Amino acid sequence: MSRPTPHVRIDRAVLERNIDTMQRAAGAAGLALRPHAKTHKSLEVARLQLAAGAVGLTVATVSEAEVFAAVCDDLVIAYPLWMDDERAGRLRGVLERAAVAVGVDSVESVRRLAPLADAGLRVRVEVDSGHHRSGVPAGDVVAVASAATEVGLLVDGVFTFPGHSYSPDARASAAADEQRELAAARDVLVAAGIPCPTVSGGSTPSVAYARGEVLTEVRPGVYVFGDAQQWELGTIAPEQVALTVVATVVGHYPDRVVLDAGSKVLGADRSSWATGHGRFLDHPDAVITALSEHHATVTGFDAPRGTRVRVVPNHVCTAVNLADDYAVDDATWRVDARNANT
Amino acid sequence: MSRPTPHVRIDRAVLERNIDTMQRAAGAAGLALRPHAKTHKSLEVARLQLAAGAVGLTVATVSEAEVFAAVCDDLVIAYPLWMDDERAGRLRGVLERAAVAVGVDSVESVRRLAPLADAGLRVRVEVDSGHHRSGVPAGDVVAVASAATEVGLLVDGVFTFPGHSYSPDARASAAADEQRELAAARDVLVAAGIPCPTVSGGSTPSVAYARGEVLTEVRPGVYVFGDAQQWELGTIAPEQVALTVVATVVGHYPDRVVLDAGSKVLGADRSSWATGHGRFLDHPDAVITALSEHHATVTGFDAPRGTRVRVVPNHVCTAVNLADDYAVDDATWRVDARNANT
Repeated sequence: MSRPTPHVRIDRAVLERNIDTMQRAAGAAGLALRPHAKTHKSLEVARLQLAAGAVGLTVATVSEAEVFAAVCDDLVIAYPLWMDDERAGRLRGVLERAAVAVGVDSVESVRRLAPLADAGLRVRVEVDSGHHRSGVPAGDVVAVASAATEVGLLVDGVFTFPGHSYSPDARASAAADEQRELAAARDVLVAAGIPCPTVSGGSTPSVAYARGEVLTEVRPGVYVFGDAQQWELGTIAPEQVALTVVATVVGHYPDRVVLDAGSKVLGADRSSWATGHGRFLDHPDAVITALSEHHATVTGFDAPRGTRVRVVPNHVCTAVNLADDYAVDDATWRVDARNANT
Repeated sequence: MSRPTPHVRIDRAVLERNIDTMQRAAGAAGLALRPHAKTHKSLEVARLQLAAGAVGLTVATVSEAEVFAAVCDDLVIAYPLWMDDERAGRLRGVLERAAVAVGVDSVESVRRLAPLADAGLRVRVEVDSGHHRSGVPAGDVVAVASAATEVGLLVDGVFTFPGHSYSPDARASAAADEQRELAAARDVLVAAGIPCPTVSGGSTPSVAYARGEVLTEVRPGVYVFGDAQQWELGTIAPEQVALTVVATVVGHYPDRVVLDAGSKVLGADRSSWATGHGRFLDHPDAVITALSEHHATVTGFDAPRGTRVRVVPNHVCTAVNLADDYAVDDATWRVDARNANT
């Protein structure tokens, strides 16, 4: 614990247990596991996931694909990319190293991908299962998939992100929405004569409800590390938290203490239902009532200045993206895909 | 505009005008300007501020001081540092290159700084003027300052951060709190026989109300770039926004569009009074209703996929800290102090 605070720390034993537990759960449900690498952005973590049995990785951007092609030859970019010459050139480079499928949710975006058909690019049609971010209604997948086959792009299947599972008591209902809409999308595709080998879903809150009768694959990300959101949603127990921000008490006042970890290391994500701006792993009654860039204001906890504490970020994906590296036991791992937003 | 999206862009003409305007306003009010470099984290921007007449820079951490000592020989670390051997070693290195004053708000933290007295370290006593984060009540500054003089640390004066100015209609009242509490702190110090050459305040929302009768110095940060928070607080007009995130419309749906800029480039900061997760510089009626890591969901705006837009982050300090560099007209500037949290 001699590194200066604040810093990001991984408990490797917990990380490996999380990876193993999710892999075995997916296998028991008859599902392939394709973890979302946007959570950890780390080649070391990706290697552990692949060694445990993941079929490949999910990423969000072409630049993440460029990083993870170093360790994985089967990538899905689960994002409605809008292709331009610059991005197409980079994606072509990735296709020389790995199989890649890209999310599509419009005829227009499919047509922009057409020049990459000769490089073997595949597409997956994104279905809106209730999150209302990207994706098309299940009934509209044929138009998008047909546009792909017309320009020579192989259709890999359908996928969704049930992001509305990130809410108290919504995990089971969002998983039911996901399964129903993906089944409908698959059925209309097959009825139109377009094979649908992959039916992919799964967020960390909903994945425990995913069943192999409809889905063939799940893409959770956060499960590797856990975070305060998952803890408060009931998806994980605190014993499953593998990543914390180590911080020091730098201020001590009659009604509060202040830590040296703020939004520039913890991230500013805070859902309406969150109890605070992160949680103390070892002191569940502490509440982070306010967060500045370099200060966390804490009530319900008392300790002298100089005390080190372990803070669980609300949303681990954005906290990781702030860090250049992780402390992992006595080693240091790079956050290889930090800022890989393009 | 050929860089891939999303990326961070600075309009240099607006930046230079903002720097000049603040410098002249401070001068007209009889105040020294010591800009907070945590906003821009850039040596290039710091050089412009110093060339315009800034007396030095404010930083938040020892690692920021290490970066900015390259261009500035007069630094204030406006933070209640809790010193340990590792940090003391780095601070000693900075003291070989620059004059440094450090914030203190307890006798205990002063004593931890004592070994640096021989290196010329100065301290400034932090006053809580109503933000209730760090700092002591004005009446308690003598105990802290006396502890400093006892161990040979020169007391540089008093300072506060009126963070409660970040609220609609609170700018003037927070500035009045700041002036009253700083004057009280100065008066009790002087009455105790401790000189108080510096009386330092000023946040971007409150700085327009700062007066040289009490204050000698102001430390605004955000004014260099502006952001959606300052726009919505009425501190700046949209013409004063110098930094935007350039994003592309990647999704188009009956009730919304989706951009490729999410919380990993815009930051997740959102005050309770914010109208959304950032603003469109050129389309003030657009509302960013939801933000994921790589998606912004937008209503009140319609444009086809592929359209580029300029998004003003809610809080520019945390958005800057996500980026490795800025596009500045045709050049690229590094975010030199990115992740300098220790």
